[in-house]
Amino acid sequence: MTANEIVVKMIFDRWNGSVKSFDELLSSLSDEQLESETAPGKNRGIYLLGHLIAVHDAMLILLGMGEKLYPELYEPFIVSADRATADIPSVKQLREFLAVQNDFMKKKFDETSVEEWFEPHTAVSREDFMKEPNRNKLNIILTRTTHLAYHTGQMILLRK
Amino acid sequence: MTANEIVVKMIFDRWNGSVKSFDELLSSLSDEQLESETAPGKNRGIYLLGHLIAVHDAMLILLGMGEKLYPELYEPFIVSADRATADIPSVKQLREFLAVQNDFMKKKFDETSVEEWFEPHTAVSREDFMKEPNRNKLNIILTRTTHLAYHTGQMILLRK
Repeated sequence: MTANEIVVKMIFDRWNGSVKSFDELLSSLSDEQLESETAPGKNRGIYLLGHLIAVHDAMLILLGMGEKLYPELYEPFIVSADRATADIPSVKQLREFLAVQNDFMKKKFDETSVEEWFEPHTAVSREDFMKEPNRNKLNIILTRTTHLAYHTGQMILLRK
Repeated sequence: MTANEIVVKMIFDRWNGSVKSFDELLSSLSDEQLESETAPGKNRGIYLLGHLIAVHDAMLILLGMGEKLYPELYEPFIVSADRATADIPSVKQLREFLAVQNDFMKKKFDETSVEEWFEPHTAVSREDFMKEPNRNKLNIILTRTTHLAYHTGQMILLRK
């Protein structure tokens, strides 16, 4: 294994492990549990689920992997706080969105070569990237892995 | 920057950012808030704080950076569940432990070269490491970063 292959494996082991943990958690929670608050007065499970799908959708843009699958989630789950928008998809729909998105992302990620992961993401200029080569596509995976872990820690509190 | 330098920077940006976020959160919480539950019937803030110090202490062993600073935290905060042990340090003491530990780790990490981060951690045999070179010291930083993010997500629920 080359040094870059090792690092891509390290970071994808964490990403895939975090996605799997989140999926398993989600399967263990009922729709009713997901509609309740993680803690009194705090975000509901349904909001965090929608938020994660919306954030992962934005990764596709940053990684140059096409358009968002669910652009309609940006407003209610990133711009707005929980309960600010009444018109949101159901837990059932969000579960389906996540499954489709996970499959889509896995396919796209599997097609990406080790070298491509070290190329700039789409929100960094070529000039800035020369100075900050850490602003690459792999870094998007890394930062979204900690983001996913952060919210998984909250959603596990819905388990009785 | 070499490829390995880029990657060490990526992962330490996340680790340092996560440590800083946790410190800021801790500063914003009163001792009383830390003694309360993150959600009804779930771990208290004080338990998660002790748990993180204990887990980070074990990193020192895995990284070959000396002995644990607070070995007495292993039993109440890793082996035992919250409230299973009555005799635990106070929030005030744990805050001090964390500050000392953060300084100690920062010093040790700053002394470590990029090449050393790609060496095996102390819990992997030379033989296994030949087959799985991703089981290096840097991977310990990476996995504990997602662990820290997971519990930070829970502790932020203590904020009123």
